[in-house]
Amino acid sequence: MHELDTFFFPKTVAVIGASSEKESIGRTIFENFLSGHLKNRVYPVNPNHAKVLGKKSFKSVKDIPGSVDLSVIVVPAKFVPTVAHECVEKGVKSVIIISAGFSEIGEKKITEELAQVMKKSKHTRWLGPNCFGVLENYSGLNTTFSASAKTNYPKKGHVSFISQSGALGVAILDWMSTQPFGLSKFVSYGNAMDIDEADLLKYLDYDKRTKVITVYLEGVKEGRKFMKIAKRTSPKTPIILLKGGIYEETHKATASHTGSLAGSSDVYNALFKQTGIIQAHDLQELFMFAKTISLEPLPSGNRVQIITNGGGMGVVTADQVLSSGLELAKISPNVKKMLEKKFPKTVTVANPLDLVGDADDKRYATAIEAALSDKNVDMLLVIVLFNTPAVDKKVVKEIVKAKKKSKKPLAVVTIGSGYTKAMVEELEKNGVVVFSYPGIAALSLKALSDYAARHKNKGKRN
Amino acid sequence: MHELDTFFFPKTVAVIGASSEKESIGRTIFENFLSGHLKNRVYPVNPNHAKVLGKKSFKSVKDIPGSVDLSVIVVPAKFVPTVAHECVEKGVKSVIIISAGFSEIGEKKITEELAQVMKKSKHTRWLGPNCFGVLENYSGLNTTFSASAKTNYPKKGHVSFISQSGALGVAILDWMSTQPFGLSKFVSYGNAMDIDEADLLKYLDYDKRTKVITVYLEGVKEGRKFMKIAKRTSPKTPIILLKGGIYEETHKATASHTGSLAGSSDVYNALFKQTGIIQAHDLQELFMFAKTISLEPLPSGNRVQIITNGGGMGVVTADQVLSSGLELAKISPNVKKMLEKKFPKTVTVANPLDLVGDADDKRYATAIEAALSDKNVDMLLVIVLFNTPAVDKKVVKEIVKAKKKSKKPLAVVTIGSGYTKAMVEELEKNGVVVFSYPGIAALSLKALSDYAARHKNKGKRN
Repeated sequence: MHELDTFFFPKTVAVIGASSEKESIGRTIFENFLSGHLKNRVYPVNPNHAKVLGKKSFKSVKDIPGSVDLSVIVVPAKFVPTVAHECVEKGVKSVIIISAGFSEIGEKKITEELAQVMKKSKHTRWLGPNCFGVLENYSGLNTTFSASAKTNYPKKGHVSFISQSGALGVAILDWMSTQPFGLSKFVSYGNAMDIDEADLLKYLDYDKRTKVITVYLEGVKEGRKFMKIAKRTSPKTPIILLKGGIYEETHKATASHTGSLAGSSDVYNALFKQTGIIQAHDLQELFMFAKTISLEPLPSGNRVQIITNGGGMGVVTADQVLSSGLELAKISPNVKKMLEKKFPKTVTVANPLDLVGDADDKRYATAIEAALSDKNVDMLLVIVLFNTPAVDKKVVKEIVKAKKKSKKPLAVVTIGSGYTKAMVEELEKNGVVVFSYPGIAALSLKALSDYAARHKNKGKRN
Repeated sequence: MHELDTFFFPKTVAVIGASSEKESIGRTIFENFLSGHLKNRVYPVNPNHAKVLGKKSFKSVKDIPGSVDLSVIVVPAKFVPTVAHECVEKGVKSVIIISAGFSEIGEKKITEELAQVMKKSKHTRWLGPNCFGVLENYSGLNTTFSASAKTNYPKKGHVSFISQSGALGVAILDWMSTQPFGLSKFVSYGNAMDIDEADLLKYLDYDKRTKVITVYLEGVKEGRKFMKIAKRTSPKTPIILLKGGIYEETHKATASHTGSLAGSSDVYNALFKQTGIIQAHDLQELFMFAKTISLEPLPSGNRVQIITNGGGMGVVTADQVLSSGLELAKISPNVKKMLEKKFPKTVTVANPLDLVGDADDKRYATAIEAALSDKNVDMLLVIVLFNTPAVDKKVVKEIVKAKKKSKKPLAVVTIGSGYTKAMVEELEKNGVVVFSYPGIAALSLKALSDYAARHKNKGKRN
């Protein structure tokens, strides 16, 4: 058992500042627990009320009978040091401090008081303050406090997400609900007065359900510690990281977060290089890389075969493949000969392989099978323009079939609306990675093959 | 009247190769006409049938009584020179040759025969061969032949699209149907044996309904002519161009298209620089730039003010703004003072301007109004994380209100699923440009401000 396990799988929980006031954070979080698997083991702590939402309320966490694994604190900042101290006295193992109003707004006195409480606690670990806490997606434990009617949550899966920013984190969870990959754990860690990004990396590496770690951070608390843990984690569990505040000007906006590594782009570039962390330059990259790396096998090289039923789309995609730093595969002579025999004259066997406008499921199947068996091909990008009369659900079927037996990465690029969207849903339901634009498709395969080149045959993903 | 007008607004049409055979191109195109405004002025030409879909069929275009403005040819390549010659004899003004099987597959003899027919015709202009033809979105004239059950068409609007690739073009039309901007004209011009991209640029510049021209091409037919026309068009009607085949390797895939400018990246870079054409590097850029430039006013400079209710999202967006080459605006001292008075202490008046998690519509309205009136601000990027309990439809209302009176570009960045998507729809319905990712938002504003810096106060858009 890991010492951080009680943050994600507590047996008993206290919500300090639980409230019945509508739209309050204390109510939202308490309700989350009441509607989940911990409903009989969650205790409201609120000295001003005898009951909160029908549950007997306690004056202090110390009054709760039996042991408490996790406390969630949502009282105003000025009361936090006191209730935190009571958590220590009670022997609470894990404390999430949601409350804001500490160093991030320059509040030194209360921050120092809280630091003293933390320092003296030997058996308690702390998340926050100024954070959204934790979403454990298998058990349903959820201390984030977005308006639930406005937020959908992602399905269960194998991508975990650590975010220094809480609001951004919740918006991303909501967006992730539309994606074909699922979530294992989300952690918003705020000011990181105790548990920092390095501790969380280490924990997620230990977590068997996490296969890919995504990170948004603005500064690293302890550079050397982070470096060491990232280096160790990376070969087993890919880490994709978006650093906020990469310019001097934008770093100012993150000034509330201190940390030895914050701000210098050079230092961060060295960090990516030395640790093998995959760098994302934007939110789109962060999650498209995560989708690709969590759903695709690792390739043996960087040579991409493009298959298409639209010449122009093939050319644009080939440009993007080359522009990303990947190579266009050169089809083996024997495979070429075989395909030339099978295909009509209108098809030139090359890369991109343009199956032309009348390509049907059989032509696609032949082309994909050939590329999968070709030793000169490491990855496949299959373009399907579904508006073409000759393609339909049968092409989807062939792609899914090929994908299931493929040991090579195989992703689809397509563009359109109604009918195309239905086909995309069908592909995604069957675990096929689909992109809307050639550019991000190429960049995602590049991230995958860079990771593979560095780490292949070292870790748990193989 | 422009000599190409009959391609878009013919009074009488012949479909040579019209057919009643299911799923044939000849049927699809003929049916398009039968269901449109030209249903009583479209004539099928097919010597093998007395009637096509209930309409009397003619043996030759020459047999049609009265004059014919437009012929659409869909017969096999080997018959094309003959029927083309008959069009010349009939005095048809415009001919679209949909049929493929010419130079693009190395077929020299038939191509040469067709070239001879074209050469001798003095009063006929030709589009194609090997193309999808024309979609005129106001009249509904449509010679493209995608499977209609699978394709949605864009609403009427002010963006036109020229594409050397037909299949890619139709896929993009389908996708464009989901976008807040509309289409004026689409032209797929294929092998460009007569009318080329330069002729089309010139025509679209003349077309009053076209305010932005988007282009996909792989090679330019006549470099000097294109250069001259593009240079003249650009200041009045922005041209956004995606060039396919920018690498030596990918240029091979476009080898069927000849042209003096094809292939050399240097020549194309010079082209963009000298003509003021806006370069798109991917499909995403092509159409996000089109959306921005068609819906937003031109800015006076490149200084962006970011307004947000999520700190992290603000920082990521600021990074992208700087990375695109734009500047972060520096709020004027008097505006800063005013905002500091109005906002709670938790809000630091800076750029990004983080209105913090409890920001409501009033705080957004104050911030937006201040930025619109600030002489140090040229453009606004307003981030709304709709999962936050304090924001709702009222924020959308304030943004729409501000947008309506704004002379500065104002775009929104947001991320999420259900509730957020509904808010995005509401914004788009009211003409607000919305982006899903900070990166493409910044690049789009950069394209807009680059265009403005070069062309402001020269053309029809002002």
